[in-house]
Amino acid sequence: MTVQSLPNFIKKRAFLTPDRPAIHFEGLTLTFKQLYERSVDYAGRLTLKGIKKNSCTAVLMKNHLDTVVILFALQLLGTKTIMLNTRLTRAEMTWQLSDSRAEFLLTESSFMVEGEKAEMEISSLTVLSKEELAESESVNPLLVEEIVLTDICTIMYTSGTTGQPKGVMQTFGNHWWSAMGSALNLGFMESDCWLCTVPLFHISGFSILMRSVIYGMSIVLHENFDENKAIEDIFTKKVTIMSVVSTMLTRITESFGDRVMPVHFRCMLLGGGPAPLTMLEKCIDIGIPVFQSYGMTETASQIVTLSPEDSLVKLGSAGKPLFPAQLKIQSEDGSLAAAGKAGEIAVKGPNITPGYLHRPDATANKLREGWLYTGDIGYVDQDGFLYVLDRRDDLIISGGENIYPAEIEGVLLAHPDVADAGVVGVPDARWGQVPVAFIAAKNGTVLADGMLKEYCQERLAKYKLPCTFIFLDELPRNAAKKLLRRNLRDMWQKGRQET
Amino acid sequence: MTVQSLPNFIKKRAFLTPDRPAIHFEGLTLTFKQLYERSVDYAGRLTLKGIKKNSCTAVLMKNHLDTVVILFALQLLGTKTIMLNTRLTRAEMTWQLSDSRAEFLLTESSFMVEGEKAEMEISSLTVLSKEELAESESVNPLLVEEIVLTDICTIMYTSGTTGQPKGVMQTFGNHWWSAMGSALNLGFMESDCWLCTVPLFHISGFSILMRSVIYGMSIVLHENFDENKAIEDIFTKKVTIMSVVSTMLTRITESFGDRVMPVHFRCMLLGGGPAPLTMLEKCIDIGIPVFQSYGMTETASQIVTLSPEDSLVKLGSAGKPLFPAQLKIQSEDGSLAAAGKAGEIAVKGPNITPGYLHRPDATANKLREGWLYTGDIGYVDQDGFLYVLDRRDDLIISGGENIYPAEIEGVLLAHPDVADAGVVGVPDARWGQVPVAFIAAKNGTVLADGMLKEYCQERLAKYKLPCTFIFLDELPRNAAKKLLRRNLRDMWQKGRQET
Repeated sequence: MTVQSLPNFIKKRAFLTPDRPAIHFEGLTLTFKQLYERSVDYAGRLTLKGIKKNSCTAVLMKNHLDTVVILFALQLLGTKTIMLNTRLTRAEMTWQLSDSRAEFLLTESSFMVEGEKAEMEISSLTVLSKEELAESESVNPLLVEEIVLTDICTIMYTSGTTGQPKGVMQTFGNHWWSAMGSALNLGFMESDCWLCTVPLFHISGFSILMRSVIYGMSIVLHENFDENKAIEDIFTKKVTIMSVVSTMLTRITESFGDRVMPVHFRCMLLGGGPAPLTMLEKCIDIGIPVFQSYGMTETASQIVTLSPEDSLVKLGSAGKPLFPAQLKIQSEDGSLAAAGKAGEIAVKGPNITPGYLHRPDATANKLREGWLYTGDIGYVDQDGFLYVLDRRDDLIISGGENIYPAEIEGVLLAHPDVADAGVVGVPDARWGQVPVAFIAAKNGTVLADGMLKEYCQERLAKYKLPCTFIFLDELPRNAAKKLLRRNLRDMWQKGRQET
Repeated sequence: MTVQSLPNFIKKRAFLTPDRPAIHFEGLTLTFKQLYERSVDYAGRLTLKGIKKNSCTAVLMKNHLDTVVILFALQLLGTKTIMLNTRLTRAEMTWQLSDSRAEFLLTESSFMVEGEKAEMEISSLTVLSKEELAESESVNPLLVEEIVLTDICTIMYTSGTTGQPKGVMQTFGNHWWSAMGSALNLGFMESDCWLCTVPLFHISGFSILMRSVIYGMSIVLHENFDENKAIEDIFTKKVTIMSVVSTMLTRITESFGDRVMPVHFRCMLLGGGPAPLTMLEKCIDIGIPVFQSYGMTETASQIVTLSPEDSLVKLGSAGKPLFPAQLKIQSEDGSLAAAGKAGEIAVKGPNITPGYLHRPDATANKLREGWLYTGDIGYVDQDGFLYVLDRRDDLIISGGENIYPAEIEGVLLAHPDVADAGVVGVPDARWGQVPVAFIAAKNGTVLADGMLKEYCQERLAKYKLPCTFIFLDELPRNAAKKLLRRNLRDMWQKGRQET
């Protein structure tokens, strides 16, 4: 018999190291005991509102101490928590709430209007604001004392190539093993302190929260990323580790001035694609140890990581798979690719999602015999280092956000005057990449650029909005009618060179 | 679906950190890559001898670099490894080989005569010496690339109150979770180096080996415990952690002289019962941070640990259960004991054995609904700290070795002139405890002390030999004929006071 249960993380942590600082947020510090007690109190408030074990509860909140308390309260009650991106449009949000069959939406006053509208559209949904909860009564809640590792902890939506976002289920075990894999790679000391300026609704941020309670590690939480505030806290709050994407790290290096990184800072964990050489060299000058990594929502954060000592020798590599994980490159004919040969990246490990919520077909398609077929293209060199060539081929990563062209294309194709649409990512100095849309209008129609933009604004989060609309007579498609996105990228590049 | 497999530990470790030192033994150092390559080479030699996946292979070897290589070679081949105590008599060894249905015995020349005798008695057993293996050819072995966490890695025999030793099965998962629990408590740094002077055939030593490959941590291995050599290596080899039992720690403090522990040494992990106050105070003077702990073969090493900052405040406590573990105290009526109330100690966690080899009844008796009922008596205080009152009531711990009175009694009762026998542990300055035997002779027989001693010497490991034989007309037994060992202990104590 395999024992699959562990003590409830936050409760156990508060029991083991009650007086260790858990979280610093805007001048406030809570110990693990205080964080636990507040979470229990909120679990009592949520109980009175009808939230209980296995309730499907969506959370739409900014990074805040209250958000952390509420997230742990939900873990104590044993709910499945849907983490909503705060940048979604109402249409996107309603779609995810409906798709996940959420019974509750916990939000805050600034999002309350949108929440109330969603409540009107989804009759089974109850919307509660944190301001309302703060005024509520509490009872002695029924706590989940034991976590079953295969139970769902969180659901995070990612867009797929099929257009509609899919809810990635993350079990307690996924989060646990992800935290273990990271600790075995980076080590863990009681003096560690992780700076979280990435969103808690992303796996990048949420995984920091989980590491905090599992390791007994303090975190510094920022509402959002501000390079000057980040630098200041690294120095004054003795931050030792920080998670970033390239754009953030560039802004940090640009604002660093003449300073040198203090020695207590031991890891800059970089996700979201390879880092440019110039930035890495700047980091070496400043004394920032950069750990490049590769991961996704489905792997509950990093699964392949490159240590700083290899970062220049293996420039462009994402590193080696973490201790509990495995990696293989599969050729198009299904065979294992030799070293240096490109193919589809597949990964395996106990940190990998059991699948997509209510999507058995998509799950069966991506997860086969324990392996997650990422759709990303890459190769491993003779030393076993991974090089990612194309993140899911079509995927656009803009300021750390994943954008799937197919989703934007779906919106565009729904427009009555659009015959065909194709979206690709193009390089952008600030965001890394931004989406560009190619449009073929229906016979005889003349489409105004501005009208399409407005149309998209109503239906897509701001970061997904195409920065440019390019009009073509016909989109490049192959015999099987598959859109040739590479041709679109070439077109865009040629257009750039000609201007 | 739960993914229960991980990459083969030693192979993955050699891949991740090939050049990191893995083991220091008598002037030799092997990196993880070298250790892996040697283990693969030995896996090839063992393959030619007929050892393959699921072979039941016993190992009877002293602490040595070769032993480590052979143990990892066996893991690479995927055998079930029976760890034999090198201090067993031939009769005990043959019994364990037979009970475990071992197909192979790997040993060394100094134990070879005993091994050959065992081979004669067990027709299905093949005995191989490491000297013979060193001269053998090798082939490309079939390696187990993926470890299934529920697969048996090791079997270690412990004596039980029923007299006959039982083989405790330890899965790869048990060892993995034990290593995780320890790391989450003690932290882990790349600079860590664990000194192993305890036997590898014990879980205390074997668990250090597993932590080494899982963490990527160097170990210093000694053939046996020598306090001066230990102290020297702590200083010169920058040892940061060491596992000890009380008698070892006492000898270290006594030999420490005027020296002060170097700051790099961060943890003295103390098992095998609570530490006396005087020794703890001495440790504070010298600067030895003592982590007291509670664990057993069935828990794959420590499961409850006390940090140094609490060691004086909570004097006599074994600490709190490690992060993945749970603890409860059960009253005689089956209810949960309140804080401060004594009862049977039960523990739960993924580090706990799935059971005893070929002993479904004993397994069902000790493991119920995920809880291991240890038979030990203890209580937890209001802060959740465990106090062990009586280690399995009858258990004698002598120099870190577990001795079960029932086993010695079984041997004594088999003597033709012994009518009844009872064994208890009595305090001893050097070994902590030693066994004392109480004998009732058969009617009209006069038994010579020396004759019984000789009789026992042929049948019991030296450390199990009773130091004294006391003759009584009748042993104290209750109405249900249960031996009243407490009465025997009282008798012995009275005898002491009178002399």
